[in-house]
Amino acid sequence: CRCFLTLYFKIIMIVLCNYICSFSMAHTGTHSQPVRSCLLLVVVSVCVQQVHGVWPLPQQLHQSADRGCLSPQRFSFTYGRDSAAQTGCSVLDAAFKRYFSIIFPDFTKGSGLLMLSVKTGGCDGYPDEDSDESYNLSVSEGQAVLRSVTVWGALRGLESFSQLVYQDDYGSYFINKTEIVDFPRFAFRGLLLDTSRHYLPLHAILKTLDAMAYSKFNVFHWHIVDDPSFPYQSRTFPDLSNKGAFHPFTHIYTQSDVMRVIEHARMRGIRVVPEFDSPGHTQSWGKGQPGLLTPCYKGGVPSGSFGPVDPTIDTTYKFMESLLKEVKFVFPDSYVHLGGDEVSFACWQSNPNVRKFMEKMGFGKDFTKLESFYMESVILLGSIQDSKITSIVWQDVFDYHERIPQDTVLEIWKGEKYQAELSRMTQAGHRVLLSAPWYINHISYGQDWRNSYAVQPQNFSGTEEQKKLVIGGEVAMWGEYVDATNLTPRLWPRACAAAERLWSNEEKTLNADLAFPRLEEFRCELLRRGIQAEPLFVGHCKHEYDGL
Amino acid sequence: CRCFLTLYFKIIMIVLCNYICSFSMAHTGTHSQPVRSCLLLVVVSVCVQQVHGVWPLPQQLHQSADRGCLSPQRFSFTYGRDSAAQTGCSVLDAAFKRYFSIIFPDFTKGSGLLMLSVKTGGCDGYPDEDSDESYNLSVSEGQAVLRSVTVWGALRGLESFSQLVYQDDYGSYFINKTEIVDFPRFAFRGLLLDTSRHYLPLHAILKTLDAMAYSKFNVFHWHIVDDPSFPYQSRTFPDLSNKGAFHPFTHIYTQSDVMRVIEHARMRGIRVVPEFDSPGHTQSWGKGQPGLLTPCYKGGVPSGSFGPVDPTIDTTYKFMESLLKEVKFVFPDSYVHLGGDEVSFACWQSNPNVRKFMEKMGFGKDFTKLESFYMESVILLGSIQDSKITSIVWQDVFDYHERIPQDTVLEIWKGEKYQAELSRMTQAGHRVLLSAPWYINHISYGQDWRNSYAVQPQNFSGTEEQKKLVIGGEVAMWGEYVDATNLTPRLWPRACAAAERLWSNEEKTLNADLAFPRLEEFRCELLRRGIQAEPLFVGHCKHEYDGL
Repeated sequence: CRCFLTLYFKIIMIVLCNYICSFSMAHTGTHSQPVRSCLLLVVVSVCVQQVHGVWPLPQQLHQSADRGCLSPQRFSFTYGRDSAAQTGCSVLDAAFKRYFSIIFPDFTKGSGLLMLSVKTGGCDGYPDEDSDESYNLSVSEGQAVLRSVTVWGALRGLESFSQLVYQDDYGSYFINKTEIVDFPRFAFRGLLLDTSRHYLPLHAILKTLDAMAYSKFNVFHWHIVDDPSFPYQSRTFPDLSNKGAFHPFTHIYTQSDVMRVIEHARMRGIRVVPEFDSPGHTQSWGKGQPGLLTPCYKGGVPSGSFGPVDPTIDTTYKFMESLLKEVKFVFPDSYVHLGGDEVSFACWQSNPNVRKFMEKMGFGKDFTKLESFYMESVILLGSIQDSKITSIVWQDVFDYHERIPQDTVLEIWKGEKYQAELSRMTQAGHRVLLSAPWYINHISYGQDWRNSYAVQPQNFSGTEEQKKLVIGGEVAMWGEYVDATNLTPRLWPRACAAAERLWSNEEKTLNADLAFPRLEEFRCELLRRGIQAEPLFVGHCKHEYDGL
Repeated sequence: CRCFLTLYFKIIMIVLCNYICSFSMAHTGTHSQPVRSCLLLVVVSVCVQQVHGVWPLPQQLHQSADRGCLSPQRFSFTYGRDSAAQTGCSVLDAAFKRYFSIIFPDFTKGSGLLMLSVKTGGCDGYPDEDSDESYNLSVSEGQAVLRSVTVWGALRGLESFSQLVYQDDYGSYFINKTEIVDFPRFAFRGLLLDTSRHYLPLHAILKTLDAMAYSKFNVFHWHIVDDPSFPYQSRTFPDLSNKGAFHPFTHIYTQSDVMRVIEHARMRGIRVVPEFDSPGHTQSWGKGQPGLLTPCYKGGVPSGSFGPVDPTIDTTYKFMESLLKEVKFVFPDSYVHLGGDEVSFACWQSNPNVRKFMEKMGFGKDFTKLESFYMESVILLGSIQDSKITSIVWQDVFDYHERIPQDTVLEIWKGEKYQAELSRMTQAGHRVLLSAPWYINHISYGQDWRNSYAVQPQNFSGTEEQKKLVIGGEVAMWGEYVDATNLTPRLWPRACAAAERLWSNEEKTLNADLAFPRLEEFRCELLRRGIQAEPLFVGHCKHEYDGL
């Protein structure tokens, strides 16, 4: 391993997809500083180093051209003396193992040292909405120090550290002198998978969690059931999957599968927020739970088809109470997504009992009031049982009826005018998640990641207080045209654009042209780590995908 | 294995994505007959069989509800006594092995018999433009008989046979009484892969050939080199890939790789037509062949960048002659694609030597004449060496200059007004390939296979003689945004739409709604065979993709 510690070229900035290097001695700067050395650059024709960036961009990154070499034979992770987490910390011990293989894929031992110091323990807990994910990473000669408040912050720092290590053409491992101060811009950085329109095998979900951690996503929004199928195997109502899944044995998630997803996510600092969407999107529920859905009428008699959940009968709420009780028991996160989107009123309207109920409740002909009545009841069911539960609902619930419990989180999914919706919702004092511009199941030809990258979640008219109510956003991969055959290349690296918007400083990361070479490099890194991430444009990676 | 041979339900037609069955006794019909039993159908509530169709649809398919059972323990393929091909026929022996595994994935022996009789031998040859791919398949009790003129027709028949076999819910194998008379509508049914914009590992190409055979494609158009990289390792000019490939060792096709592709294709009745596109799209050529490309000028001096191949100097034609000589030696097919598309004239215009040459040749300022001069010369080089060579060129060559050797095949790639282009080219007496509406590297959200399916290659104004000059078409998967990570799900099943248009009777296959359930079933069959084909819409397959 040949080390050059004194005199080196330093990367200042990436301009127009080309790496431009400037000659400097022991000179440090940040990624965001303007190019000061343009004239010099022309003279320097040999550019010996490529950029080894971090995606998403850390809040503060000072990288020197001085590099130290890492010998995989003697490299080691260690806990600092003052660290609250020590050997035996499940989350970090596993992370050391994982990141060692990622950093040194061909070796079993390493040299150099990363000392990790965590302020608070909590190795056996779950990440939650208040988890502190900040970390400081300092890489100097001989060793690196990673400090964080929580194990979750330590995970983020390990990820950044792993991205800083690179190999030269002779296979030697290097890391540059680096100082990182980092923390997420938003606390909620989610990714939605839809396992109802197509069943996704367990390993497709686990692989997605891996890639999420590489991009610092921290919430897996599991849209687990919907109209087409009910793959969640309920303890309380096993007929829901027995009769509502595509197949009662091969196309379900057993309790053990769900546990595995939650634990895999936990080890990566990722929360699992399940969605049980009602009263619409429940066709598959009806198969295993007779009497739950509204019978539709035609010509004065039941037509044989069914509509949304029947909001007029007690048994519905008893069922929902039992189901939510189970959900809260199975899923440790304090958030549950209760859906509430796209309810069609035609079937309710056709049903004489529903019409009678409407009259009795004084709703007139306004079925949005009926939907609101149902959603309020279900949200209430959730919070009665356990006061810590936070409900998320789709924007429809707010659009219909603004009287929703104040602590309910609203999620925006409708593409048009989401800025106006952000204004209205935050003005009403609700916390908000933005997903509308990140429906990346929608595809188009070319580099559509640039659209995701251009999104500015706090760019709407409102006070500073209102802007703080935007707690984050979600990339959504709905399943109409997606299953395990095309999930991964459709997600990655396209989802990385939103990952950076949700983690990094927006002012430093608005220019997609500057981001392009960094994202290209990160995509090659995803490939190297076994994520089948599709190309951004013409070119190649050192390690191509080889898993056909 | 339980057989029911006397009394059975018969599938008449697929209507609105649902299978509708009618009750009938020993009744036969064709897929194209109208639904006659609609009233009866409503009565029959139990539909015991699903459709087991063939994709692309055979020209004539009579399928009975009578089914015989196949026992994998005793099934066998055999050559008929009168067959010209017998044991030892490389193509068919290998096909028997392959199709046995496809039909009975879990077994090593079978019962039942497929007797195959081929009129002419040719087991060691290559398929070509005149290959007879027709076959007749007759499945009756106890045995099936497959007759064809050539081994290539036998391969098509084996593919159809393999699609007719199905398993019931108890795992028993069945095949219905069936009579098929089949032949392709077009002789040239191609698929283009671009291995220059991204390198495709060998196994990605081989896998594509497998899937092509399942859809009865018969030409692999290998767009092997282009601007970004030159992965073809030339015997004559090794520097072309040494200096022009993305990597001289990991991102190239050796002679042995090329041989393997050609043999893998041959065994499946697929021709390999290489494309060496010039004079444009040759940036990568210039790296290993100094002096080949036109030096661009700026302000009276060479700018350091290069344009298309320099058409003004003798060395260019000597180089092209040697390269084409090698290409014709390496690739057995009598067709070579010579490109000729998208030549930018700016660099030629900037170069004083080129301008001088233009003057000398009397071309004035019309650079299309220079391009035509070059293309004519290169086409001539091809045919001088071996009179059997047929050149294909992109439409630009015809658009610029109609004086092209009459036997040159023209390929249409420009999206707008391809019907008018078909008229003009066939009126000029040229054979034509249609690719413009089948650029399926272009993606959009939803079921875009329907657009490919709606294409009518002979629907243009012209005589019957002109229509016959349309020899086929090609699906193109250009590589700007495609590499091994997303190639397969982007190709399949989307390419199947064009496969049916090119093979089947257009009148019987114009309705995409009728095709939908057949294509859905075929997509599941592709999955079962290990092809990572993406879903058409919400739903599931018995055998999901599991190869993550």
